Amino acid sequence: MAADNFLHDDKLREECGVFGIFGHEDAAPLTVLGLHALQHRGQEAAGIVSYDGEHFHSERRLGLVGDQFTKKSVVDRLKGHAAVGHVRYSTTGETAIRNVQPLFADLSGGGFALAHNGNLTNALKIREELIASGAICQSTSDTEVIMHLVARSRKQRLVERLIDALLQIEGGYALVAVTNKKLIGARDPLGLRPLVLGKLDGAYVFASETCALDIIGAEFVREVDNGEVVVVTKDGIESHRPFPPRTPRPCLFEYIYFARPDSIVGGRSVYEVRKNFGAQLAIEAPADADVVVPVPDSGVPSAIGYAQQSGLPFELGIIRNQYVGRTFIEPEQRIRKLGVKLKHSGNSAAIRGKRIVLIDDSIVRGTTSIKIVQMMYEKGAREVHMRVACPPITYPDFYGIDTPEKAKLLASHHSLEEMRQFIGVESLAFLSVDGIYRALGYDGRDATNPQFADHYFTGDYPTPLVDQDDNQPHRQLSLLAEAS
Amino acid sequence: MAADNFLHDDKLREECGVFGIFGHEDAAPLTVLGLHALQHRGQEAAGIVSYDGEHFHSERRLGLVGDQFTKKSVVDRLKGHAAVGHVRYSTTGETAIRNVQPLFADLSGGGFALAHNGNLTNALKIREELIASGAICQSTSDTEVIMHLVARSRKQRLVERLIDALLQIEGGYALVAVTNKKLIGARDPLGLRPLVLGKLDGAYVFASETCALDIIGAEFVREVDNGEVVVVTKDGIESHRPFPPRTPRPCLFEYIYFARPDSIVGGRSVYEVRKNFGAQLAIEAPADADVVVPVPDSGVPSAIGYAQQSGLPFELGIIRNQYVGRTFIEPEQRIRKLGVKLKHSGNSAAIRGKRIVLIDDSIVRGTTSIKIVQMMYEKGAREVHMRVACPPITYPDFYGIDTPEKAKLLASHHSLEEMRQFIGVESLAFLSVDGIYRALGYDGRDATNPQFADHYFTGDYPTPLVDQDDNQPHRQLSLLAEAS
Amino acid sequence: MAADNFLHDDKLREECGVFGIFGHEDAAPLTVLGLHALQHRGQEAAGIVSYDGEHFHSERRLGLVGDQFTKKSVVDRLKGHAAVGHVRYSTTGETAIRNVQPLFADLSGGGFALAHNGNLTNALKIREELIASGAICQSTSDTEVIMHLVARSRKQRLVERLIDALLQIEGGYALVAVTNKKLIGARDPLGLRPLVLGKLDGAYVFASETCALDIIGAEFVREVDNGEVVVVTKDGIESHRPFPPRTPRPCLFEYIYFARPDSIVGGRSVYEVRKNFGAQLAIEAPADADVVVPVPDSGVPSAIGYAQQSGLPFELGIIRNQYVGRTFIEPEQRIRKLGVKLKHSGNSAAIRGKRIVLIDDSIVRGTTSIKIVQMMYEKGAREVHMRVACPPITYPDFYGIDTPEKAKLLASHHSLEEMRQFIGVESLAFLSVDGIYRALGYDGRDATNPQFADHYFTGDYPTPLVDQDDNQPHRQLSLLAEAS
Amino acid sequence: MAADNFLHDDKLREECGVFGIFGHEDAAPLTVLGLHALQHRGQEAAGIVSYDGEHFHSERRLGLVGDQFTKKSVVDRLKGHAAVGHVRYSTTGETAIRNVQPLFADLSGGGFALAHNGNLTNALKIREELIASGAICQSTSDTEVIMHLVARSRKQRLVERLIDALLQIEGGYALVAVTNKKLIGARDPLGLRPLVLGKLDGAYVFASETCALDIIGAEFVREVDNGEVVVVTKDGIESHRPFPPRTPRPCLFEYIYFARPDSIVGGRSVYEVRKNFGAQLAIEAPADADVVVPVPDSGVPSAIGYAQQSGLPFELGIIRNQYVGRTFIEPEQRIRKLGVKLKHSGNSAAIRGKRIVLIDDSIVRGTTSIKIVQMMYEKGAREVHMRVACPPITYPDFYGIDTPEKAKLLASHHSLEEMRQFIGVESLAFLSVDGIYRALGYDGRDATNPQFADHYFTGDYPTPLVDQDDNQPHRQLSLLAEAS
Repeated sequence: MAADNFLHDDKLREECGVFGIFGHEDAAPLTVLGLHALQHRGQEAAGIVSYDGEHFHSERRLGLVGDQFTKKSVVDRLKGHAAVGHVRYSTTGETAIRNVQPLFADLSGGGFALAHNGNLTNALKIREELIASGAICQSTSDTEVIMHLVARSRKQRLVERLIDALLQIEGGYALVAVTNKKLIGARDPLGLRPLVLGKLDGAYVFASETCALDIIGAEFVREVDNGEVVVVTKDGIESHRPFPPRTPRPCLFEYIYFARPDSIVGGRSVYEVRKNFGAQLAIEAPADADVVVPVPDSGVPSAIGYAQQSGLPFELGIIRNQYVGRTFIEPEQRIRKLGVKLKHSGNSAAIRGKRIVLIDDSIVRGTTSIKIVQMMYEKGAREVHMRVACPPITYPDFYGIDTPEKAKLLASHHSLEEMRQFIGVESLAFLSVDGIYRALGYDGRDATNPQFADHYFTGDYPTPLVDQDDNQPHRQLSLLAEAS
Repeated sequence: MAADNFLHDDKLREECGVFGIFGHEDAAPLTVLGLHALQHRGQEAAGIVSYDGEHFHSERRLGLVGDQFTKKSVVDRLKGHAAVGHVRYSTTGETAIRNVQPLFADLSGGGFALAHNGNLTNALKIREELIASGAICQSTSDTEVIMHLVARSRKQRLVERLIDALLQIEGGYALVAVTNKKLIGARDPLGLRPLVLGKLDGAYVFASETCALDIIGAEFVREVDNGEVVVVTKDGIESHRPFPPRTPRPCLFEYIYFARPDSIVGGRSVYEVRKNFGAQLAIEAPADADVVVPVPDSGVPSAIGYAQQSGLPFELGIIRNQYVGRTFIEPEQRIRKLGVKLKHSGNSAAIRGKRIVLIDDSIVRGTTSIKIVQMMYEKGAREVHMRVACPPITYPDFYGIDTPEKAKLLASHHSLEEMRQFIGVESLAFLSVDGIYRALGYDGRDATNPQFADHYFTGDYPTPLVDQDDNQPHRQLSLLAEAS
Repeated sequence: MAADNFLHDDKLREECGVFGIFGHEDAAPLTVLGLHALQHRGQEAAGIVSYDGEHFHSERRLGLVGDQFTKKSVVDRLKGHAAVGHVRYSTTGETAIRNVQPLFADLSGGGFALAHNGNLTNALKIREELIASGAICQSTSDTEVIMHLVARSRKQRLVERLIDALLQIEGGYALVAVTNKKLIGARDPLGLRPLVLGKLDGAYVFASETCALDIIGAEFVREVDNGEVVVVTKDGIESHRPFPPRTPRPCLFEYIYFARPDSIVGGRSVYEVRKNFGAQLAIEAPADADVVVPVPDSGVPSAIGYAQQSGLPFELGIIRNQYVGRTFIEPEQRIRKLGVKLKHSGNSAAIRGKRIVLIDDSIVRGTTSIKIVQMMYEKGAREVHMRVACPPITYPDFYGIDTPEKAKLLASHHSLEEMRQFIGVESLAFLSVDGIYRALGYDGRDATNPQFADHYFTGDYPTPLVDQDDNQPHRQLSLLAEAS
Repeated sequence: MAADNFLHDDKLREECGVFGIFGHEDAAPLTVLGLHALQHRGQEAAGIVSYDGEHFHSERRLGLVGDQFTKKSVVDRLKGHAAVGHVRYSTTGETAIRNVQPLFADLSGGGFALAHNGNLTNALKIREELIASGAICQSTSDTEVIMHLVARSRKQRLVERLIDALLQIEGGYALVAVTNKKLIGARDPLGLRPLVLGKLDGAYVFASETCALDIIGAEFVREVDNGEVVVVTKDGIESHRPFPPRTPRPCLFEYIYFARPDSIVGGRSVYEVRKNFGAQLAIEAPADADVVVPVPDSGVPSAIGYAQQSGLPFELGIIRNQYVGRTFIEPEQRIRKLGVKLKHSGNSAAIRGKRIVLIDDSIVRGTTSIKIVQMMYEKGAREVHMRVACPPITYPDFYGIDTPEKAKLLASHHSLEEMRQFIGVESLAFLSVDGIYRALGYDGRDATNPQFADHYFTGDYPTPLVDQDDNQPHRQLSLLAEAS
């Protein structure tokens, strides 16, 4: 990994984005576009399975949607009026085509393709049981576990069998599946992972975010509810609610970092929410400074909010090199050594001699913050005051966000003052937990019944962590490492 | 497919070659070399799984071994002292990475990697049963079926579980498997598909042919017997014979076309056997001609045999363009239209004004023969007498040879005279069935207990054809078409 | 070209960026980094020639620096302590490796490698004369013309011969050359094209912009003066001024669009200048609006300036998909048809129900502006007031900027009101010519002795246009079209 | 270079093959096919320039014709009814696109594309003079030198200018050129390099060998004579003979190794000539042996001739791996170390216990012969008698054959007995110089007026060696090393 990837390296990672459509003659090209709009949720690989009324067609590729799925030959092979798609970010560092989704299997009722965003908290336990009873696991993905449970269910109809499977799994998930008759979208009982329903030319669409509806011009219908299983057939949609009713607890990090700013999540504009985070931060932690500087690109909306609330001017103190994103992946050592500024550079004119408020959306390990702050001083900043538009991250996530282990989370083992010194700034402040709820329109966090999943800040995990409860927290059954 | 591939298009195809090694520090590079020597058995894809004492490592690629497995990065990832490898020719036209072997799965006893050459005659039936009982089938390969049976066996030890699986399958197979403690090689009860055992620096080696032992300098130990399961551990080898004793019936086509001429199959030099076929053909079907011309390259040994027996001079009447093999795969239509001689050209100097005996190893559809004969006449041959160094192919194979359906086999629905007219030669003769046995050292075919599998000539299938017995001979459960 | 490239398609294009270094053991990797920082000046191809004291080494590739020049094998081949490099944007649509710079030739004094940014206004005339006298022209580039003139000079020393050549050419150029003893940097008599001098570890560096010095940590020494030829040898630098002294007239478009915002051009921060353009525009053309929205990314600094001056809030009303830049180059027609929003999307939350001031850096054809404005209305903007941070572009450039012919420049044949209607906005205003000078610190344009080249706005070309003066304005001698 | 390339490494190399066609609507695809048939003359790169009546179109690529020129997009770009093409083997180890032919230049009379097979013996001298007088040389090829001479000629018509150029150069060449009105083919005064004229559908064709006529179905018209310049226009062909009449001395190595066996060179079948070489060798140097074994593939015709003459059986004692040709180019060191038999293997069955006569077409360095002989003994040969179907190569070539310098030619500094010991055979014999002439139908070599160029055997160079006569035999003006 290049030294210069630092600005990206220190972010939390989403594992996936999903998309599905049923009943549209352009099912595959629309899925390509939908996945492209969800590309920020996973850049490692993408896959699409379509169904043409007779056969299923699958294309799975490492790389970006826009590189791998734009050829006529690829789109033409994905025949049919129904399709599900997936973009993936690998949590394990393992770049294996066998782990790329959607997975497909022949079941007794016919073909079944499944794509899934999220993480199960009891997948390892179930996997062990499956293997003990003679199942073969060819990938390390939770998706395969769900598939096995569907395959083994004694229920008759496929939807019942899927529900049977969902009742056995724990964790956060949003999944889309296509069979020879149906498109199914489902969301975990707490609604941890996002899934929305849209409509285009009479065809129903599922997607992780509304931006995937926007790109194809689909109308937003509603969010899939927590614990809901929505089934689309040629006769329309039907809704199943197999779980006991619960108050939803969607993941706060969709607002903080994952979702695209132009998406609507839980009825709120992500862009507006991020500006509110910045504004709330300005109220909670004002700074005696001259300019507000965002860490690009994810810090920009919060910085705008902070600037507007504080009255300080907003300035581009850091310039991003727009040609770095996908090149300089593994530069030769002599270049890497010399090129510590491949990705960003400080904009001296905006910061020289100034006291700056540097706004970032979050701090994970803090290693990146050190480098950015240092760059600001080198380019002449007189004082750097860092403001972070979310609370300190102190606990790992187990629902589909790729968090480093607890020991590597800066805030989990440093005091605020220690962090300030570590990062090397004049002052450092984080948005408070109650502040984040206020920015979302509440008076604060409802401690007895929290409105969101916020365990990364509070340690209050919304579900049992089965696989974590025994003493092998990162036990990996699969012994196979594959790159291809 | 290019028009000019005709000389190759009209051959039978082997599905695979396998290789395995245990207890050698260069396990992966040796497997690369072994697979390279077996490349003629499958050019579509290759794969290697190695085991390093802790993890399994898998690399599977479409393309040739020499292209895909020669990079340092690839070889370095394949750590360990044990490895199994596979080269594959796709019988289905489906070029899917998910079908590339070896397959790997986590079983309750640990990791298990399996590579397999051959075809099961009851795989579809078993597959249906597996799916009905909740298994998920992610590929269309027989290998996955075997893996499921191993996974579901109630036996304790892995070898016992594999034997349990083998007892349920029918057909032709040679397989190699690696576990965290063992390397296993096994051959079907009739020894239809070939497998040999070798030794290098104290490490045991399995390979489809002896030429793979030669390339790494390994000593030939013996053939794996029909129905034998050979288990290699650090303590040496042990042999299991789970099937009732039977007389072997190895596949004649290894001698006729598949095996490399420098391999030793069943104790016989393939080159010598082919020369014998030619010599026997000269005895059975002499020709009043001036020169003997082989169809390159596979007809050369038989042509040498025919020439030596008949006393006629051997001449290169057809010149192969050595640069065609892998280029001109799909030339633009304007080139294809013009270029009917991309691959071979007639050598006028050797044949002008002459009566030639054209020797080919076999005739499948006959379409190629027409073109070659026509080229001979165009280049001035006065008479063309075709001699084929095996009997007429009249029945399809179901044990791992990719045969066209019966209706497309020229000899299955044409008399000899019809074939002669179809191909357009002065005279046409095939080696007799008894002649092929004579060339192999017998007095003729032992009708009650045939020494070889020869069903493509006789219709005498050596095993029941379970999947063929119902009325859906090409029933394909999998509904998935994938290219990647 | 994809429909979605529209935001980029309607910008003026720079032809090139150049870089050179002499006397550093890391000459090649530093040149790679320097060219990467200049990548915005040309994305089609890049090239580097190095000199190791004995041989010259050349690598020229189509594609991005970060893709093509990061491998160890490439960097290792570029041996030596001196190097020149080039990034290129093709003005002609011809993507030919033979036109990729630097060019190299054996001259009587030894090897000579030349890279050049700009365009000669008498190249065609000279080329005709060269050909008439027996020269062979293998490319269509001006660089080859300069090389011929150097080769044919009767002067003795190489610097003298280069000067001899420069005295014969007209136009805008910044060039770097390396010989077996020297690195040379030169700028046209008016300083139309930019070139700066820097120093790193005692080694001198030339680059088109200061951002290329920043990335390698080099110190900015000074700009190369207009008409100056700077020669670097192991003994230091010497300056030649072969032209009569003239007031410089650097190109305004470096400030408007070409240069990176963090570069310093003519002693001014490009970022500051662009903010000043926005502020001046707010003074000249205020709007009765609610928010200021930039067209990303190039409109951002001006929008910040406009917002700060006007007191209106700055909002991200358009979100750029960061994964589009290099993918979806030629998507299959079915995708293209559906995907008109691949690159950007309107951010409804920021603009719904609002009166917006949309800020763009320039308008060329206007086709893009139409689409953006339409997107704004679709996303709920109540009124759109467009403000353009430069004057109307009415004349083509002939000094190295790829301008469409006059007839395609929107402002050259439409009145302001016609343009307003064409683009479909409530109001439209451009920065005035005097305004642009004011934003740069002058009272206004000095009509008798203009401080900058501003012919695209005024028609006042700073040099004679020899090749344009006859009646074949786009006469192309070369008859060769090559793609490779 | 891989260790296993040994069998090929020890051959002499031809530099090029050329092809041209005029007046055919399929000019480009026919040129693709023609170059494919000439691929054995150069595998490094290929190029085609076509002319469509208005523009020239050029495509030049590294790699094989069948890989690089079969796409529709490539063929479609090569518009027009006239084309010239070239395949190249690099003599210098420098794989540079700038050296790939045909070259194109704008001359005062219009475009001119030139492709050339051969080598000039006074190119360096001319090049020095050109550079001294102000020419720029961008490649290291002789072709560029010829182009400069054409460009500088004071003659009026292009054919006259080309003849003017030819009168200044010395050496061996066969060239084809296309202008906006003509196709030209020319051959050096001695006819050292081959060129034939053919006709297809009324269009004239030039090619290095007749096999390129055969592949497109063109009729062979005649050879271009030594010293002849053939000009094809829409009005037919005209012949110029600018040189004083001389007896031709075509290159013997076309018969020995370069030409394809199915080509007709100088009115003789190459296959027949090679058989005659073998037969003559059997007469001159019989062996007390059991079988004749060819070194594949080039030794096969001579071996057939030897076997037929001697009455010994012809056997395939060496099997070539048909999948090696283009893979295993640079295998990882661990594979290379282990895999000394990647390319060929000994066929034990054919040679065990036998006394073999090993037939090769030529011996250059002898390093390969050592390895082959060793392989024969390892596989059980009792005695190995080596017979070489040409005389000992003792002098380098300077007319387009890539010969090692004299010191590396085995025969130039070893006696026959020393060579026998070096190679490790029981006996060793070469065809005599007179024998080679006898096999070609003469009584022997005419010492006063030799019928062929045979300097590699005799040191009797047919032309002055201008560039060799001063003391810098390998003086390379160009200082540039480029790989791209």
